[in-house]
Amino acid sequence: MTEAAPSLATLLRARSIALVGATERSSWARSAYENLRRMDYAGRIVPVNASGAAFFDLPSVPSCGAIEGEIDVALLMVPSKAIPGVIGELAGIRAKNAILLSSGFAETGEEGVALQRDIVESARRAGMRLLGPNCLGFVNFTDGVAAWTTAVRDVPRGSIAIVSQSGATASYICRYAAQQQVGLSAMVSTGNEGDLGVADALDHFAADPATKVIILFIEAVRDAAALRRAALSASRNGKPVVVLKVGSSEATAKVAQAHTGSIVGDDRVFSAACRALGMIRVRSVEEAVATAALLDSLGPLGEGGLAAMAISGGICEVVADAAETHGVELCAFSDATRAALASHLPDFGTSHNPLDLTGAAVLKPDIFEGAARELVAEPSAALAAAIFDMPEEDAFGLKVIGHIGHGFAGARAPGVVMSIAPKPVSPEYRAQVREAGVTFLGCGLDVGLQAIRNAFAWSRRRVQDETAPKHRAPATERPATEPALLQNLARRGVSVVPGEVVTDSASAAAAARQAGGPVAMKIVSPQIAHKSDIGGVRLNVAGVEAAEAFDRIIADCAAARPDATLEGVVVSPMRERGVELFVGVTVDPQWGPTLALGLGGVWIELLKDTSLRLLPVSPADIVEMLGELKAARLLHGYRGSEAVDIARLADEIGRIADAALDMMPGLQTLEINPLSCRGGRIEALDALAEWSDPC
Amino acid sequence: MTEAAPSLATLLRARSIALVGATERSSWARSAYENLRRMDYAGRIVPVNASGAAFFDLPSVPSCGAIEGEIDVALLMVPSKAIPGVIGELAGIRAKNAILLSSGFAETGEEGVALQRDIVESARRAGMRLLGPNCLGFVNFTDGVAAWTTAVRDVPRGSIAIVSQSGATASYICRYAAQQQVGLSAMVSTGNEGDLGVADALDHFAADPATKVIILFIEAVRDAAALRRAALSASRNGKPVVVLKVGSSEATAKVAQAHTGSIVGDDRVFSAACRALGMIRVRSVEEAVATAALLDSLGPLGEGGLAAMAISGGICEVVADAAETHGVELCAFSDATRAALASHLPDFGTSHNPLDLTGAAVLKPDIFEGAARELVAEPSAALAAAIFDMPEEDAFGLKVIGHIGHGFAGARAPGVVMSIAPKPVSPEYRAQVREAGVTFLGCGLDVGLQAIRNAFAWSRRRVQDETAPKHRAPATERPATEPALLQNLARRGVSVVPGEVVTDSASAAAAARQAGGPVAMKIVSPQIAHKSDIGGVRLNVAGVEAAEAFDRIIADCAAARPDATLEGVVVSPMRERGVELFVGVTVDPQWGPTLALGLGGVWIELLKDTSLRLLPVSPADIVEMLGELKAARLLHGYRGSEAVDIARLADEIGRIADAALDMMPGLQTLEINPLSCRGGRIEALDALAEWSDPC
Repeated sequence: MTEAAPSLATLLRARSIALVGATERSSWARSAYENLRRMDYAGRIVPVNASGAAFFDLPSVPSCGAIEGEIDVALLMVPSKAIPGVIGELAGIRAKNAILLSSGFAETGEEGVALQRDIVESARRAGMRLLGPNCLGFVNFTDGVAAWTTAVRDVPRGSIAIVSQSGATASYICRYAAQQQVGLSAMVSTGNEGDLGVADALDHFAADPATKVIILFIEAVRDAAALRRAALSASRNGKPVVVLKVGSSEATAKVAQAHTGSIVGDDRVFSAACRALGMIRVRSVEEAVATAALLDSLGPLGEGGLAAMAISGGICEVVADAAETHGVELCAFSDATRAALASHLPDFGTSHNPLDLTGAAVLKPDIFEGAARELVAEPSAALAAAIFDMPEEDAFGLKVIGHIGHGFAGARAPGVVMSIAPKPVSPEYRAQVREAGVTFLGCGLDVGLQAIRNAFAWSRRRVQDETAPKHRAPATERPATEPALLQNLARRGVSVVPGEVVTDSASAAAAARQAGGPVAMKIVSPQIAHKSDIGGVRLNVAGVEAAEAFDRIIADCAAARPDATLEGVVVSPMRERGVELFVGVTVDPQWGPTLALGLGGVWIELLKDTSLRLLPVSPADIVEMLGELKAARLLHGYRGSEAVDIARLADEIGRIADAALDMMPGLQTLEINPLSCRGGRIEALDALAEWSDPC
Repeated sequence: MTEAAPSLATLLRARSIALVGATERSSWARSAYENLRRMDYAGRIVPVNASGAAFFDLPSVPSCGAIEGEIDVALLMVPSKAIPGVIGELAGIRAKNAILLSSGFAETGEEGVALQRDIVESARRAGMRLLGPNCLGFVNFTDGVAAWTTAVRDVPRGSIAIVSQSGATASYICRYAAQQQVGLSAMVSTGNEGDLGVADALDHFAADPATKVIILFIEAVRDAAALRRAALSASRNGKPVVVLKVGSSEATAKVAQAHTGSIVGDDRVFSAACRALGMIRVRSVEEAVATAALLDSLGPLGEGGLAAMAISGGICEVVADAAETHGVELCAFSDATRAALASHLPDFGTSHNPLDLTGAAVLKPDIFEGAARELVAEPSAALAAAIFDMPEEDAFGLKVIGHIGHGFAGARAPGVVMSIAPKPVSPEYRAQVREAGVTFLGCGLDVGLQAIRNAFAWSRRRVQDETAPKHRAPATERPATEPALLQNLARRGVSVVPGEVVTDSASAAAAARQAGGPVAMKIVSPQIAHKSDIGGVRLNVAGVEAAEAFDRIIADCAAARPDATLEGVVVSPMRERGVELFVGVTVDPQWGPTLALGLGGVWIELLKDTSLRLLPVSPADIVEMLGELKAARLLHGYRGSEAVDIARLADEIGRIADAALDMMPGLQTLEINPLSCRGGRIEALDALAEWSDPC
């Protein structure tokens, strides 16, 4: 691409748009035209069609080559085979951007991949940028510019941008936002991302003054490094990025491959990446829109929990259950708050959180105001929520909203009003609610609580803008057996169990005697990774039995794996059972080295109870990771067992992570399983390394 | 209560209603009147107020005593202190039912409990039934009868009944059903349930020909036996019961106590009870309404999974992820289906499930029809779903619905159309959709998939209408120590590890020698339950160390628990580590004996990975329970360990459950932890019993 490649702004603020393939018979072309007219587009529209027939009220030109004057964007609504020719013509008139609607490119297989590559290359040579192929275009609500090929109606202007690899999904997100009266600044669909991708669009909106929050819909990450940079830019500018990424299920992988022509990466690593980059990962269209709307309206929240109120005890219980389900902490009311609430509430009211205002509030609506005032004044509350759901046309409902608005006004914590079940929001209602100074979510309790949880988490995010060192010399040593790897790790400061490699039964007996107690004996072979499966491990071997155990291990392994080179048996002192952890570093092709912690032994695979983070991590991160494990209680001394020294443990895990980073590039996986922990004694008992390519 | 107590039908089909406390200033009274007029109530309305002033177009009487003629229902909108007098007057005129709106009874504390009890007793003496106190009344949509004190508008008539302990929550459920155009047959709010409760109402609707599905909102189960009978009656009549029960969170317990005057029982046992009784437990208002609507419309589903389609690959991926999240199995298309789909779909379409119809379907809507026809013909599909979301007023949307309706018509599996995000449904749209023969859910993908999962589970339910034997003689023997309990269990056919109780170190050494290998040694004391916490357990003791171990155990336990009687130490052969399970039977005060299975040792508490069922259970139930454990893979032989004989294991667990039932009444808890499993060798290594009251 030339230095002078136009910025995304030339696309999104296009002053001239060519509609290529514009006939009134095409629903795409009709929608594109109607969207422009509906937005009162102020720029120039040039229809192009071979017949030269008029398109609505506009004369057309017969080919792109025949266009006179500058073209900022050409929207190509022509079959895929016609695209190369059209791109050539557009290059000739120095068009700045082209949008390719057509399917039939990289998502269809090898031939399509080649076709797409050729088109992208010819556009680049001409200094032209491409959106698509296999996309629906863009809408810039802020400036009234659109090249979008399905109907876009009744969307309020606002400060949330939607960026989506799927055009249809962008439409659904947009339509739901409109139904909820959530305002948008822009919508961009990137399709196959032959040239421009979600990262480019995110980067643009991170700097766009009209945009405060960005929603991404991602099927496959094509350029992780660019996405990382763009996400960090948004984070630095204080803009939340809400990500709906599909691919958590197995079945999805098939659909995605067919649909986007690329492979879906590992889902949990992507979640770790979101966390590292301060992005909010959501699971539904509604959660995306509600989260964006809440953060758009309230900005970052302070420390503390949620203070909630409703006019029914039954609903308060539903709120309490749902808050627990969705991980929202309900704060405990201080004595001062309880006393103040008692002055507003009738005798039979109680002052728990969620607060039951009781049916009395229906008779005396100023109870809402008094209670709202106390909730936002509660020192342990970061946010107050009134769960309140009246028919929109109801005068009583608006009166209550007014009371709540007065109660929430000017307090230390912000407040929000939420519906119980999902309901649409009319423009009139939204206007009246705004008038009352109230933020309203019509998404219903469950999605509303998900949005609140997300807003809490985002407000407390710690973004990881330091990245793992990149340019290292490849590791020169690649230990091929477990004892060699443990020795290598020991030299790098990792605590490992001592071990002696023996090659005959007499030496085995001697090593066991030397250990002075029961020993663990394991086969040493570069070809055997899972040793216990084939009789390659014997635990708790008494000194007198060591010679026989040696012979058995060799015999079993030779029988099971005649292909393997058996270098001997390693004899280590048996450790008392403590807590055994799994510590693994794996190098993700997109996101780089990733640390996984879990309970060791067979549990790691059985329970799937693991915590993941991109590297590097701080000791505080590691302590947080350990706390996320269900098995965390084991570390704190459980049923009489000794508590593990968590600071020491975090330190040791940090050294293992550092050792893995030192082994890059070349390292694929480093696994310590188990890392034995008894009080302050922490030792790697077993280690395994995999390398990405031959040395 | 007298034999002649009126049935619930005299309440719900009341031919005469007294509105007691009827003044136009009261919003309750106004709403009650307006609801009756809106429904064109055909019966007699008698306003009662002390002033004798007219109430809207009706003359009033000054007291209940002054009413002439029969009164089927008196709706009491008077303060709680006036209630006893009014009940007395109603008894005088032989009124059949009274509805008590007022708060200030059992939910407020002891005084309120006493007041409520007195009122209920005087009503019973007069053969009068009560609904409430602290309720909002009832609406019978089928027959046009209502005594409900907030506005009820625009609710379509249908065949779903709502029964709720919370009146406000019933209103919210009703309003959401109306927004979704889901038709109702009735709504009953039971409040404090001084007399009539949810079980009475469920029992009524189980037999009501106008009702096909019942939704329950429950804060606290007050009469489990009655609820069980009513649920089984509904199940026998093929009517799904959908239960939204609060109380899964800790915070809820407080609100519930304040609100309903009763204690919320254990949440997981309630889930087990729902399963045993064939009730569907849901977690939100939307899930309740969508589940009821789906089963109301489609009835029980056949065997198989879900076949889904959408017009966007992105949405297909969202569907696949959400299906996995919500536990809906997507069936795999047969070769015949794939071939047939290929004939309907353009070149670049793929035939995975969910099926991506691609944007081409927008241009050629008959693609919907062809695809729909193949989906409902797929042999492995129990249900087909078209995920399709167009603006309601859109002619194209209705055209597509028509195509889908044709495709679904008359096939072996039913079909449903679902919106992506939640959206309201207009009466006109619902009518047009019905016309096309289509079932439509506007609840959005997530709730729609929850409803589908629930419908699948309900259709495959195995209801447990056999209950645990009730009338037994109390157990005469209550073994106080572990060895005594194990011997007792052995006599009942449970396999237990051998053990010898010794009372001095020399006998300990002899017992260990006799065992012929390492032994486990444990303190024997009726007062010490958690032995390992205080040094009361030594494992892997070699014969020569047994005497010393005995002395240490006695010394440690004597030091830690000077209050305890130490009867000796039990010496058992040490078993090789296999899979260790937890098997517990606990007697729930409401639901009776409940079986819990999980991984043994400390894991049961750490992982909370347990499966629960009400007793009795069949061997097939036990196998299913084992399969629900995350640790299930351990049983099938994991990383070289021996597979456990599952049939033997189920048999052994069945014997433990039978032993527990034999120990009732009197038994509170029987716990085997661990039950050691190695291949076909299954043995209880440790047992603990708790008794509900002194023998």
